[in-house]
Amino acid sequence: MLGPGDDAALSRVKPGHVLVSTQDDLAEGAHFETRWTDFRRLAHKLLRINLSDLAAMGAVEPVGVLVSAGFPPQAPQRWAGEFLEGLAEDAARFKVPVLGGNLCRARKLFFTLTALGQARPKNIVKRSGARAGDILAGVGPIGDAARGLAELKAGKTGGRFVKAFWEPQPQLEAARVLAESGLATSLIDNSDGLMRSCELLAQESGLGVRFSLGRLLWQAAQADGEDYGLVCTVRPKDWSRLEKILPGAYRIGVMWTERRAAARKPSGFDHFR
Amino acid sequence: MLGPGDDAALSRVKPGHVLVSTQDDLAEGAHFETRWTDFRRLAHKLLRINLSDLAAMGAVEPVGVLVSAGFPPQAPQRWAGEFLEGLAEDAARFKVPVLGGNLCRARKLFFTLTALGQARPKNIVKRSGARAGDILAGVGPIGDAARGLAELKAGKTGGRFVKAFWEPQPQLEAARVLAESGLATSLIDNSDGLMRSCELLAQESGLGVRFSLGRLLWQAAQADGEDYGLVCTVRPKDWSRLEKILPGAYRIGVMWTERRAAARKPSGFDHFR
Repeated sequence: MLGPGDDAALSRVKPGHVLVSTQDDLAEGAHFETRWTDFRRLAHKLLRINLSDLAAMGAVEPVGVLVSAGFPPQAPQRWAGEFLEGLAEDAARFKVPVLGGNLCRARKLFFTLTALGQARPKNIVKRSGARAGDILAGVGPIGDAARGLAELKAGKTGGRFVKAFWEPQPQLEAARVLAESGLATSLIDNSDGLMRSCELLAQESGLGVRFSLGRLLWQAAQADGEDYGLVCTVRPKDWSRLEKILPGAYRIGVMWTERRAAARKPSGFDHFR
Repeated sequence: MLGPGDDAALSRVKPGHVLVSTQDDLAEGAHFETRWTDFRRLAHKLLRINLSDLAAMGAVEPVGVLVSAGFPPQAPQRWAGEFLEGLAEDAARFKVPVLGGNLCRARKLFFTLTALGQARPKNIVKRSGARAGDILAGVGPIGDAARGLAELKAGKTGGRFVKAFWEPQPQLEAARVLAESGLATSLIDNSDGLMRSCELLAQESGLGVRFSLGRLLWQAAQADGEDYGLVCTVRPKDWSRLEKILPGAYRIGVMWTERRAAARKPSGFDHFR
């Protein structure tokens, strides 16, 4: 409705929908180093990691984004231009209006983006909905972004892993299918790594996890992070339907009650409490 | 509805209301220096400057805020604690829920806050609605925050000017009155200084300004900024009503068509185009 150019932006939220909001940052030293950063691609990543957080809530339609960036006085002028161009092109790709934001002077580079979305309450899937016996499943790559980061640090600038690091694919469509079909009983994205996401989902649902990951996935999950896939739970009877609807979904394990998980403690990595 | 603890937050926007969103930052080196910063008060300021942007849109009711903060590894641990406590206490004071956000590691300190609000479309007042002949008016202090900043840099930590710098009063109530009464034809906040706000409002309305500020206000306005008052325009016939409704309102000048403003150019500071 009203974008940058006034004190604040105006947007419509459809009747019967709730507002979904999230905010995430990329900061120099924590998330990137200037010597291997392409600021156009950094803008893509900043947008996508926030869209991934919207997807992690279910069938969420993006409404718009607000962006802030701090540039040190000694930063090359073109960085800000590349960042803004990258943001505009990726926002257009995902059909998300840029509602506003700020460029300011800062001692070190930082970038913050807020993503706003809308969803019908019945299509929201929380982290806390898993039940004992539910199958834990994943969607999207594991470990590709971490490998891309290693390649970037080693001086590589292209290829599919570097692309996976800079341009993760937010799983908005998979999340929509999972939520609208009613299949997912809980949902989270795996931004901090697959194991960490499983742990958070289990915690929020008051359960443990009994893992049954294949060896290759298990190895990949030991050094992953920033893949921005999804982790969800489905009822056992719905597993075959899930595999049909989302052919790329893979099985991670089964949700256990804490008591059963605790009983299996000696066997190692097979649960969180 | 759902706050921090899931991938994103959920909020309701009332039927018949539009979503109002804004985002603003405080960055080390640009907006503050650690040697004179109280992080509890910085959190107050971060919240209030964003609430001021909501107020600058008219009768806006805050819905919630999202916050991001980056702390360098060498920053004292207590800074993050003070910041979060300060945010929580001021958010409670303004009855605004903290919907979520992030603390991350950064090379230098930065703070970003997004404020979300809701308003009836008829109670939105843009920068662009001023008409030739409208009276330009201000609400709130001028120059207090700038004086407070000078005192802070000189080592002072208390007093009313330091308070004006750290804890500006967002004019949500004055904005509500201006919008709901239908008095204001245009509205902006004066965060970048009174003169700059007048210039922006005039630009957006395609007009010039003929100033009639008293000498004291004129002097104060030469070295102001960060006061977070309001600047608005009202029809000449509504001036006396404005003075009754908002007793603190002061007269800044009159809006002119560009042609008349240009004709007066030789006299100096009396217009913007």
